[in-house]
Amino acid sequence: MILLELLNLTFEREHGPNRDSNVKFAPLACRQPEPFWRNKSDMDTFKTARDAAFALRPDQPVYCFRPTVLSADALAFKSAFPGKTAYAVKTNGEPMVLETLAKAGIDCFDVASPAEFAAVRAVAPKAELLYTHPVKAQSDIRLGLETYGVRVLALDHEDEVAKILRAVHGLDLDPEEITLLVRLAVRGHAAYELSKKFGAAPGHAVELVQRIARIGFRVGLCFHVGSQVEDTDTYERALASAAWVRSRSGAPITLLDIGGGFPAPYGHDPRQKAPVHPDTAALIAEVVEEAREWGFDDVPMVAEPGRVIVARCFSLIVRVLLKKGRRIYINDGIWASLSDSWTGKITLPARLLPDPARRRHNGDPQKVVAFKVCGATCDSVDILSRPFFLPETVDTGDWIEIGHIGAYSLALRTRFNGFYPDTFVEVTTPFEAAGPAESFASVETMAD
Amino acid sequence: MILLELLNLTFEREHGPNRDSNVKFAPLACRQPEPFWRNKSDMDTFKTARDAAFALRPDQPVYCFRPTVLSADALAFKSAFPGKTAYAVKTNGEPMVLETLAKAGIDCFDVASPAEFAAVRAVAPKAELLYTHPVKAQSDIRLGLETYGVRVLALDHEDEVAKILRAVHGLDLDPEEITLLVRLAVRGHAAYELSKKFGAAPGHAVELVQRIARIGFRVGLCFHVGSQVEDTDTYERALASAAWVRSRSGAPITLLDIGGGFPAPYGHDPRQKAPVHPDTAALIAEVVEEAREWGFDDVPMVAEPGRVIVARCFSLIVRVLLKKGRRIYINDGIWASLSDSWTGKITLPARLLPDPARRRHNGDPQKVVAFKVCGATCDSVDILSRPFFLPETVDTGDWIEIGHIGAYSLALRTRFNGFYPDTFVEVTTPFEAAGPAESFASVETMAD
Repeated sequence: MILLELLNLTFEREHGPNRDSNVKFAPLACRQPEPFWRNKSDMDTFKTARDAAFALRPDQPVYCFRPTVLSADALAFKSAFPGKTAYAVKTNGEPMVLETLAKAGIDCFDVASPAEFAAVRAVAPKAELLYTHPVKAQSDIRLGLETYGVRVLALDHEDEVAKILRAVHGLDLDPEEITLLVRLAVRGHAAYELSKKFGAAPGHAVELVQRIARIGFRVGLCFHVGSQVEDTDTYERALASAAWVRSRSGAPITLLDIGGGFPAPYGHDPRQKAPVHPDTAALIAEVVEEAREWGFDDVPMVAEPGRVIVARCFSLIVRVLLKKGRRIYINDGIWASLSDSWTGKITLPARLLPDPARRRHNGDPQKVVAFKVCGATCDSVDILSRPFFLPETVDTGDWIEIGHIGAYSLALRTRFNGFYPDTFVEVTTPFEAAGPAESFASVETMAD
Repeated sequence: MILLELLNLTFEREHGPNRDSNVKFAPLACRQPEPFWRNKSDMDTFKTARDAAFALRPDQPVYCFRPTVLSADALAFKSAFPGKTAYAVKTNGEPMVLETLAKAGIDCFDVASPAEFAAVRAVAPKAELLYTHPVKAQSDIRLGLETYGVRVLALDHEDEVAKILRAVHGLDLDPEEITLLVRLAVRGHAAYELSKKFGAAPGHAVELVQRIARIGFRVGLCFHVGSQVEDTDTYERALASAAWVRSRSGAPITLLDIGGGFPAPYGHDPRQKAPVHPDTAALIAEVVEEAREWGFDDVPMVAEPGRVIVARCFSLIVRVLLKKGRRIYINDGIWASLSDSWTGKITLPARLLPDPARRRHNGDPQKVVAFKVCGATCDSVDILSRPFFLPETVDTGDWIEIGHIGAYSLALRTRFNGFYPDTFVEVTTPFEAAGPAESFASVETMAD
């Protein structure tokens, strides 16, 4: 009951739910020390988000974490993929997530910075770290090699080879212990084009492969096809490019990293027909078969799934602070969990949790209408670019549970205006199993 | 020399600058405890950012704080404005900023959340807090009134009056002790339109004024005209609206809050003629005169400056991690200090600080060209939407000092990908006084 005490909900526990809310939240310092309930074992557990909302009556956003869903989704990927599964830490680097993954048997992580090295090491001392950021600070390369045992690094430019070599010489390491992945530029189908920033064109990639092979490094190839990629054409094009680079360079390729891009299930506009979500295992099997066809059956493979593993394991409870006609003001927004500056537009499933203490009910509960959603800050751009579709009766004091928000939501929070959602509970029922999502929230979140 | 020790720069201190960089940064935990050098007294002090860059040779972004510039800009505003100066904490709520302002004599703060209440109270126990967010959580209203002595609150809807009244009754406060500011919708000139989210239309505002006066609250009026407002027409329209609401409601108005919007000085595209920056004192005098003309000479006034006070007191040292032709990769980006998802486009002055240890120099140092700037994360959207104009010779390892970055930069940092700029030094020379800004960085930052 630590969380309850923390929220000073003693009044409510004695007097029952009270809309007039004598709830007093502990003041949040602008820079909070690590809250102790972040350890999974300290979180309060509820059967559903509805139970959590009605018990806690929170005025601040509450993340509902489902470790069993996370473990299941991670193991589903791992068992379907014949290579190494490297979780993409950038998607959600919360300690509770990394710890659950490590316990579930994920022993390889895709990392990009010293903070990510440390976050993984804190929960998985023996896990393998793949340092896949193509552009790295000199000191970070050294730190990775020296302190965190990094032995796989990505690059797409000869100056990066020089940086890595400098650190390898400085630490007196043998290049043969180290695999350098040459990142290939690929044209993706995904709205979100990853190659405009990173990746060497095929001819350049051949030069890089030959250069690093000459030095004595082990050589791998990697690419990143995009996000929510639902057909395998994009992977096929990338594999064709990888096969060409391998053949032209003549160097032995010891690792093939196919990146991420595997789609997570989301919601859909209820006015339209439900899309068919592709089966992850079938998609993986297809990509692996393509790789075999392009001659990579003798090369160990790695994948870097993020979204497909972590999307479903969090939902978010937000509260309606004010209703003005067809406009609602909620306690979260674009500067916190609902960052919508992304091009990848995703429809999240949502569920209205009407405050049982509310007496007034205006409108038809069966009628679902579009509400413009204004975010928590006093910033006027903090308005979601697309509406939430909710029952007409939604009103001040109600809660909304937004499902499948585990990817790129926590990771993109700012402390702007002092609003920083950082309260967590554990929930045992999967979002889908807690009744129909009678509403939905079209939030634009980050692509993979 | 605490910072130096922290950065493990011992090697460099013994062996001098070394491009091969045996610098090892302490691993940054994803959730750092409050770093101790955040206390102003613990920061290393340098004469210029150049001195700081060459001494620290930082691979991570470093904020250069200029407390004397901050005090001067705050006092310049305060002495020019005949009413109460309430610093808008959202612009930059760093403890070192609030502490410096409090010491300089700023005793009133514009706040919007429990975290902002606490941040101000931590450095200014007696300061007045104006709770100007028109939409507030019930528990936050109570917290403000009970724990933080808030006595001025803004609103733009009758349901918000009900929430405040509930808290006032719950705490057995006398409404006469409390001033409620009715936020007026105003049409601004600024690109950044603040009234689409907040503000009551004139007729509605009259009703609200009458309602809260009947209850026994003291009544004020407030508006927010936008950001970087360089002419006073926008203020005049808002004042006309306020005068109309005052006259129609017949209620005594005890406070007029004219909001923010006063422009800070920035840079300009060197290929174009330098714009004339309006004199802040003259602008204030004009607005005050307008207020008198609209009959508010008998009403105490408040202003909520943010950007105009805090923009100049920070610059940021970033490092070039890689150069690919006319593209540079730096160690900061849109998810940290250089958030460019804003509509308010601002040109920041910048200065190249070439690494003295670098031997290669390609190109003409006199030729300034446009470089596409890729941010620190491995996210492909992390590319600034506009180029930096820099001498052609800029290369991997160089630093760039970006000036006037105090407003809405620190405030909008995320921890995405584990990159979180949070290193500070104190610098004694104003940015402008440290030599010409031979380059410039067109970053799009938040409007006021």
